[in-house]
Amino acid sequence: MRDIISSLDFSKEDFLTIFSLADEVEKGKKLKLQEEKVVATAFFEPSTRTHLSFTTAALKLGAKTIGFSSTEGISEAKGENFADTIRMLENYSDCIIIRHKFDGAAKFASEISNKPIINAGDGKHEHPTQTLIDIYTVYKSFGSPDNLTYGILGDLKYARTVNSLLRGLTRFKPRFVYLISPEPLKARKEILSELNYPYKEIDSPSEVISEIDVLYVTRIQKERFPDEMEYEKVKESYTVDENLVNQMKKDSIILHPLPRVNEIDRRIDSKPQAKYFYQASLGVPIRMSLLYKILSGEW
Amino acid sequence: MRDIISSLDFSKEDFLTIFSLADEVEKGKKLKLQEEKVVATAFFEPSTRTHLSFTTAALKLGAKTIGFSSTEGISEAKGENFADTIRMLENYSDCIIIRHKFDGAAKFASEISNKPIINAGDGKHEHPTQTLIDIYTVYKSFGSPDNLTYGILGDLKYARTVNSLLRGLTRFKPRFVYLISPEPLKARKEILSELNYPYKEIDSPSEVISEIDVLYVTRIQKERFPDEMEYEKVKESYTVDENLVNQMKKDSIILHPLPRVNEIDRRIDSKPQAKYFYQASLGVPIRMSLLYKILSGEW
Amino acid sequence: MRDIISSLDFSKEDFLTIFSLADEVEKGKKLKLQEEKVVATAFFEPSTRTHLSFTTAALKLGAKTIGFSSTEGISEAKGENFADTIRMLENYSDCIIIRHKFDGAAKFASEISNKPIINAGDGKHEHPTQTLIDIYTVYKSFGSPDNLTYGILGDLKYARTVNSLLRGLTRFKPRFVYLISPEPLKARKEILSELNYPYKEIDSPSEVISEIDVLYVTRIQKERFPDEMEYEKVKESYTVDENLVNQMKKDSIILHPLPRVNEIDRRIDSKPQAKYFYQASLGVPIRMSLLYKILSGEW
Repeated sequence: MRDIISSLDFSKEDFLTIFSLADEVEKGKKLKLQEEKVVATAFFEPSTRTHLSFTTAALKLGAKTIGFSSTEGISEAKGENFADTIRMLENYSDCIIIRHKFDGAAKFASEISNKPIINAGDGKHEHPTQTLIDIYTVYKSFGSPDNLTYGILGDLKYARTVNSLLRGLTRFKPRFVYLISPEPLKARKEILSELNYPYKEIDSPSEVISEIDVLYVTRIQKERFPDEMEYEKVKESYTVDENLVNQMKKDSIILHPLPRVNEIDRRIDSKPQAKYFYQASLGVPIRMSLLYKILSGEW
Repeated sequence: MRDIISSLDFSKEDFLTIFSLADEVEKGKKLKLQEEKVVATAFFEPSTRTHLSFTTAALKLGAKTIGFSSTEGISEAKGENFADTIRMLENYSDCIIIRHKFDGAAKFASEISNKPIINAGDGKHEHPTQTLIDIYTVYKSFGSPDNLTYGILGDLKYARTVNSLLRGLTRFKPRFVYLISPEPLKARKEILSELNYPYKEIDSPSEVISEIDVLYVTRIQKERFPDEMEYEKVKESYTVDENLVNQMKKDSIILHPLPRVNEIDRRIDSKPQAKYFYQASLGVPIRMSLLYKILSGEW
Repeated sequence: MRDIISSLDFSKEDFLTIFSLADEVEKGKKLKLQEEKVVATAFFEPSTRTHLSFTTAALKLGAKTIGFSSTEGISEAKGENFADTIRMLENYSDCIIIRHKFDGAAKFASEISNKPIINAGDGKHEHPTQTLIDIYTVYKSFGSPDNLTYGILGDLKYARTVNSLLRGLTRFKPRFVYLISPEPLKARKEILSELNYPYKEIDSPSEVISEIDVLYVTRIQKERFPDEMEYEKVKESYTVDENLVNQMKKDSIILHPLPRVNEIDRRIDSKPQAKYFYQASLGVPIRMSLLYKILSGEW
């Protein structure tokens, strides 16, 4: 019985175990649960990509799936509290996958439920299964996440995928990590204090772009800025366009958790560095491997 | 081919047959349909708990499920009439589970459809499968629903679960039933006229609480009162709190169909009398047993 | 790998292949995919009937299904573009069924996706699987869609089912087709220019009703008229009522893609000519046959 709330819930060995299993799945291994299992997807906040990818993974393992994809149709809308909803899902399922707009929702659920909880994104906190996918994409592209220079670009303050990635990378040996963001979106101090690898906070990708092996892009939301003019000022520097990509190494890669809006110019999609669709395609084998470990009781 | 519209559609023998099968399921019996079946869940009114519990039950039996969970995404929103929607579902499925805001919707559906209809709650009318769960919880706790003193607390006028429970209890021999509600929410005369066991309508639980074996609590909705002050006046007396529970017998039980809002203080959850989460956990085995009887053609 | 965007994507032989397979399914043939497949239903515009019928068909073939039924819960609401959503679904599934409010959405999806796309209705353009059902109903009723007189009644300008039907009939030999609609809703010129069978545009069904073998009815939407008075003027002539049906041949049939609103009087439902519920019941076997051909790789 194991909950996945943070990417720190994975040891280095856990990461490599999942990567190795996902690789076998990609190569055609038929991964099937021996016993009948029900997976509940409790998406209190909408998300197509994560929801459908977890559902697909569960179905491919031979599990049944139940769940909801917004709070519209559920009793919480009528005032039921979160704890009672989790207790209900615990009755029906063998594992609960939670997406919620509040930081800590998954942790709270894990304190209520006797069934394993998987955090599929909680507010501005974490999204650990995205990190599995992110680091697996690096692993597949370079053979190892170690000894590479990373550039994490965009909103480093509010993006839960960034928190999870920065923490997940502490299980490996990055050569260097550039944290590239405008002033109002600098990474939170408590995250930085946990990092065990060399990093530097900078304001613009241009000065370091030619050094970077892995450029991880996240969206910058206008609403995060105190006034719109400040947003307009920085917007351009955080858009990945042809000019920026032309300065990148030939074998570097660009990742993005998706969905994207305008932060990656669509003309980049055909560049060899653009790996975000490939990255997205790894969501199902990674999530199959994780669910298998948890539902089979191996973890 | 059998419809389940009211709890009166179950004879005493039917209740006991379902209870006995549910008990075997709880003990690990693998209940599986021999033939391929499709179950349609037609939730014209939202409900997570009932919807997910029926879906889980159907999937565990090996059936396929289709359906909708609000009228938002369905053609009825565009003006299709209810009868045509039922005819559509009848084409696709072997059994239709209906939740609707109008009293009588399930009955009407059963007149249109040649496939069995299960009422999962129709307006202020009935919710018979909840009664199966309710009485099964009593059966599991006391060995029999007979010779017990019941207190039904809260909204006895508009709560469909109460209508179904009062009717369902006519198949058994309750020692006494206290109907505890404020004036505007007294049980409807036509229900009372059907009861074949001793009962009394009272205004407050305090006078009888120490006699009660089964306290069945329902929510009191503010909107049911002519003015808010009248609601504020009675609210407190119908909240189950520590003070009330301390007056209850040691082996008495508290039930609630859930979701609850404030009518049961959360500090009660850890009391031995609090059986509403246990009750909720019986939803899947009960509904598996009922669906099995209907879909296998035994009923 | 074959996309179904228009009814012209079916040759006459294709129609007959699907009809013959659907007929076997109706007679009890167990049609099952040998390999594990995932079908994605991407309903950007709500539709119960088509969505549930495709889902039922896929489940009965033994496929897994994932999807969404409105844009409410999906990332597109947050600004993700259509192309990225299709790329996501392509990663998770073996076939994508699309409903969208924009003409050409399915075609555009097919240019992005390497997995087969099935158009389940795109704006005012086409709905080719409805045409499979429509012509199959004629085939079942008369033995062949050839040598019959058709009357297509109602909105011939904006109804995608009509566009697909008119095009689909070019694969057969209708004796004559009456296009019966008020002035503002005449069929579009580009469709008429494709027709290879005799047809005539007329204003009212009354003059030809006794000649017609197949009356295909579609809804006339008030919003299509420049002013409401003009709508009120024509409304009556395009409502199929007892008076009209009494003038029809005994063995003629009335079809409607459903959902209907008021364009067919409910008192007609019991007439022998009323075949629209029968037609609707053919949706699952037809869609099972089509999905089987595509997912098994035979097409």
